[in-house]
Amino acid sequence: MVKRYLSLCSLEQALSLMKSSFQAPQCTEIVSLTRSTGRVVAAPVYAKYSVPEVNISAMDGIAVRSRDTVGATDREPVTLEVFARVNTGNIVPPEFDAVIMIEDTWEVGDRFQIRKSAAPWQHVRPAGEDIREGRLVLPKGHVIRAFDIGALATYGITHIEARAVNIGIIPTGSELVPLGVRPGPGQVVESNTIMAQVFLGAIGAKCTRFPIVSDDPDLIAESLLAAAKENDLVIISAGSSAGTRDFTADVISSLGELLFHGVAVKPGKPVLLGKIQGKPVLGLPGYPLAAQTALREFAAPLLESWGFPPSPKYPVRVRLAQALTSDLGFDEFVPVFVGRIGTTLWGTPFVRGPVVQMATVKANGYTHIPAPVEGYETGHELDVLLTTDPGSVDRTLFFPGSIDPALEELAAIAHDEGLFIHASNVGNDGGFFALRRHACHAAPVSLPIASPLFSTGDPFMQHRPSRDLAFVHIAKIEQGIASRDGIAFDDLPGVRFINTRKDSSSRQVFDALLRMRDIPAARINGYLQEVYGPQAVATAIRNGFADAGMCTSGIAGKYGLRFVPLAYENYELAVQQEMLEDPRICTIIGLIRSPSYQAVLKRIGGYDVSHAGIIRGMADDSTLTELSPTAPPAGYPGT
Amino acid sequence: MVKRYLSLCSLEQALSLMKSSFQAPQCTEIVSLTRSTGRVVAAPVYAKYSVPEVNISAMDGIAVRSRDTVGATDREPVTLEVFARVNTGNIVPPEFDAVIMIEDTWEVGDRFQIRKSAAPWQHVRPAGEDIREGRLVLPKGHVIRAFDIGALATYGITHIEARAVNIGIIPTGSELVPLGVRPGPGQVVESNTIMAQVFLGAIGAKCTRFPIVSDDPDLIAESLLAAAKENDLVIISAGSSAGTRDFTADVISSLGELLFHGVAVKPGKPVLLGKIQGKPVLGLPGYPLAAQTALREFAAPLLESWGFPPSPKYPVRVRLAQALTSDLGFDEFVPVFVGRIGTTLWGTPFVRGPVVQMATVKANGYTHIPAPVEGYETGHELDVLLTTDPGSVDRTLFFPGSIDPALEELAAIAHDEGLFIHASNVGNDGGFFALRRHACHAAPVSLPIASPLFSTGDPFMQHRPSRDLAFVHIAKIEQGIASRDGIAFDDLPGVRFINTRKDSSSRQVFDALLRMRDIPAARINGYLQEVYGPQAVATAIRNGFADAGMCTSGIAGKYGLRFVPLAYENYELAVQQEMLEDPRICTIIGLIRSPSYQAVLKRIGGYDVSHAGIIRGMADDSTLTELSPTAPPAGYPGT
Repeated sequence: MVKRYLSLCSLEQALSLMKSSFQAPQCTEIVSLTRSTGRVVAAPVYAKYSVPEVNISAMDGIAVRSRDTVGATDREPVTLEVFARVNTGNIVPPEFDAVIMIEDTWEVGDRFQIRKSAAPWQHVRPAGEDIREGRLVLPKGHVIRAFDIGALATYGITHIEARAVNIGIIPTGSELVPLGVRPGPGQVVESNTIMAQVFLGAIGAKCTRFPIVSDDPDLIAESLLAAAKENDLVIISAGSSAGTRDFTADVISSLGELLFHGVAVKPGKPVLLGKIQGKPVLGLPGYPLAAQTALREFAAPLLESWGFPPSPKYPVRVRLAQALTSDLGFDEFVPVFVGRIGTTLWGTPFVRGPVVQMATVKANGYTHIPAPVEGYETGHELDVLLTTDPGSVDRTLFFPGSIDPALEELAAIAHDEGLFIHASNVGNDGGFFALRRHACHAAPVSLPIASPLFSTGDPFMQHRPSRDLAFVHIAKIEQGIASRDGIAFDDLPGVRFINTRKDSSSRQVFDALLRMRDIPAARINGYLQEVYGPQAVATAIRNGFADAGMCTSGIAGKYGLRFVPLAYENYELAVQQEMLEDPRICTIIGLIRSPSYQAVLKRIGGYDVSHAGIIRGMADDSTLTELSPTAPPAGYPGT
Repeated sequence: MVKRYLSLCSLEQALSLMKSSFQAPQCTEIVSLTRSTGRVVAAPVYAKYSVPEVNISAMDGIAVRSRDTVGATDREPVTLEVFARVNTGNIVPPEFDAVIMIEDTWEVGDRFQIRKSAAPWQHVRPAGEDIREGRLVLPKGHVIRAFDIGALATYGITHIEARAVNIGIIPTGSELVPLGVRPGPGQVVESNTIMAQVFLGAIGAKCTRFPIVSDDPDLIAESLLAAAKENDLVIISAGSSAGTRDFTADVISSLGELLFHGVAVKPGKPVLLGKIQGKPVLGLPGYPLAAQTALREFAAPLLESWGFPPSPKYPVRVRLAQALTSDLGFDEFVPVFVGRIGTTLWGTPFVRGPVVQMATVKANGYTHIPAPVEGYETGHELDVLLTTDPGSVDRTLFFPGSIDPALEELAAIAHDEGLFIHASNVGNDGGFFALRRHACHAAPVSLPIASPLFSTGDPFMQHRPSRDLAFVHIAKIEQGIASRDGIAFDDLPGVRFINTRKDSSSRQVFDALLRMRDIPAARINGYLQEVYGPQAVATAIRNGFADAGMCTSGIAGKYGLRFVPLAYENYELAVQQEMLEDPRICTIIGLIRSPSYQAVLKRIGGYDVSHAGIIRGMADDSTLTELSPTAPPAGYPGT
């Protein structure tokens, strides 16, 4: 039996119900000063004494009574009988109310002569200049910053009463294994409660993770009761979908009250909220990105309504690099990668569904598409909340295209130059498409080596933009057939093949060879089954889903597969000519040319780097020029 | 002998010299996953296995070989012999490449009939959908976020190799006492190294604070050598000014090399950088705000050049609420309070010098005035970097004026409504001045109770803006003479008096009484010595700097002083009429009217709250109307 959600309420209704149903717990904790950064002050902090506590001299000189100095001039100097010698920082004794700089005095025996009167309190740092005893230092609700701690220490404050909240987090699911155990087939690491613990801990919550509970209503009930007893908020992970093993909603109903189950939010629809023993119980959906939505859009706002600090938000306005569709009536949250090309911030949404956690890892922001919106066109401007330091956006290069391990190595050394390469595996076509829109910094592409095999009629050539492009050579890569058993091209009709996408270099080679040998595609079992790039091919073969496929020698070796070479491809970085002047691209070219990077590729194996860093243009709009050494522009590093 | 700085170099030169003189230490640390938020990845993280590791069904149904389904239609159903029953999340056995939803099948005995062919890989979550074995999860340099940790846990990663840096921090100064010891006269708590530890710790540094070293060159040298041996960076606090007890520069020169001493930056001019045993040694100036500059503008950028994350920066564009002067040739950093009035962000700079730490505590941002700039006019637009959550700016009310403890209590309860009151003690004049420019939300003012004593000719009246103002009554406060010994008004000529500023209510009362009794101001010893408000008066009397002064009964009582009543003042919140519609001001008025707030004031004592929350306008441009109950606008909370 498939259960239904009680009802699907809107995000706004759900949040309003949540915030109005629970009072802030009156829980505080004494925190030592050095551990108080980011904590919220629970009781106002007052100064215990004045700083400075007494009047202090701001100069080297003499402390005087200002009334004794009245009338002193060059023509009628005054000789002071009552004074005290003071240095900067010394106490000004209570009987004095001014300091005269030593340069403005003349010693006359054991007395001082002055030729100008002193204004009351001149050169005196009055007691209480910084703060006065009993005055408010931090109001309730202040979020403590590092530099506040310096002031608090100066004022003698050693501990802070901070807001506290105890959160019990219960993982449920029979398919879960704890972190540190390698999951078997069909199992997954119990990661959502770890994420919840870290996320909520950063807000100032004290989180207790409970042991994993299997899909058993009685055990779930037992754990929920224990967690509600000891905590101010209970979070229960998974079991809230509408499946046959999803007991969370029913158990909460039986122990207390279910406030909502199912919210028109994506990802995150199965989120639920209940009340047990007066305590809120938030049910996280099981899919990781849905759990993130529930934590960020429900748990964090609840804590915020209880006086905890909001997560920092850095909104930026971006143009969409690709169209984005959204379900009408659902508030959607979509991970976005933001990069600056020229003066424009471009946002590339990740729309690979709620289980692909790499989407949030690769994204540096997310956008909220309101319920009444059905989507946006390419080029539409919208707000993105960054999840990284905003400054890092300008240090990030977006390289969509064909991803080879050579690019990952390039990214690793680029970071030492302060640059992040964000690579997304969209194939040659995807890379050229982004280049044409100026929506990326460069596109890594794997181009078949110019040979009689390839004509301008090949589909690959259709998408290649014209002469405003330049190609920076990274390496020549050997490609051929990977298999567990050393399968050669001619053996293919008898085995399970796995193909690569039409726009890939390996597919170009493969199709050309089929044509040359007059082998119909239909004879290749698996010809229609396309994956992205050589790593996907190698994985499929290694895991037994296919017997052979086109791969590079390096990746085949890395996956422990045998390899029969067929051809070469050029792995190159395609850029708009104008980007050759971008200092970040200059740095990348310098790195491609560096002996240390080339040494890394040689160590991996399968790369010919003898032309690395050579830049070539297009001879005309449709054919590739021969690879030829082109003088690199002046000023490039590494030349 | 006064020593000179070796030479004053520009901020730019100093930073460039600093970054080029030291290589990043190759120091890393293994951090457990749950403690890795905010840490920087030191070695690329690769996936240990694919997720999912095998093909998974995305639906409840049957796993099939897609080639068996070719040709199935309603008219020619196909009956499958080879299949496997699967539920969502189940493994799709390797021999199958598609899943057909159970709704699209018809059971025929122990077999299934279908009426539509299945596309290869339909309803299958392919192995490696999230990530493939061996693929890059996090590049070197990635700063780990809470949601990354969920992904890392899923991929079986339990520990991270993170960048690490060891910093030794040495406090110097014979006047220092450690935190927890109450400083005697002329002593201060050693707080700058605590601030450094917390600030640098948040960036990911492991800081070791050394014991306090007194001003002795040999002891300083010993401590510097020990710190340089064990750490990647040494920070030495104070002793770098040009005074006679400032040995830091000389000691560093003798042990190694002094790279710069004295930078054209304010506050922070005495900052120095040296090299001992190849390690950088940064000398922090002793004044707290100068030390902050050195930490934020030197230590943090050095760590950033070593690959540590920059502190988050939230730039906002603000209009200056008051003019700001700057020394030509110096890069200046000025704490700023930013508040939103209507649609404009207003910035009020704090210019009280490098020892007043309360300036940074009260500020929510700071601005950098470049060296070639001499200052800005009121209304000038400039960039401020916020030091608090940007969202908090809209929840903050700026209340400059006369600060009474009643306002601090109001601030404390306002926070429970999500509002921060930022109060700055600038007197009635300062409050009215800000109100006139619309550069504050409201001004707390202490107005003398209308009486024959006060005429429109009083200087106090000059600054009061006209009929577009409204006054929200907070309390009637008793004022009179505070002293240790019960001094009355007529006793004043014989004692040391401490006066309050001309724009204060107590000064109005005092001057009026002098006039009524025909006492010349010159007969009052201390008449010219003015401080801000009653708390400053009470502090001065309690600390023995004066014998008597005008104060409120509540504050006199709090400070343990005797009190002789003379008159009353109205403590009121002056607002622009239009602000009465601002929901935040409505909330504040509701709080002033709340029985709980009034109970707090009664408990403190000295407050008459019988008219609290009554709003009155100005009868004409120059006189105060009688206090009379005015019907509050509809919709106010608490009415």
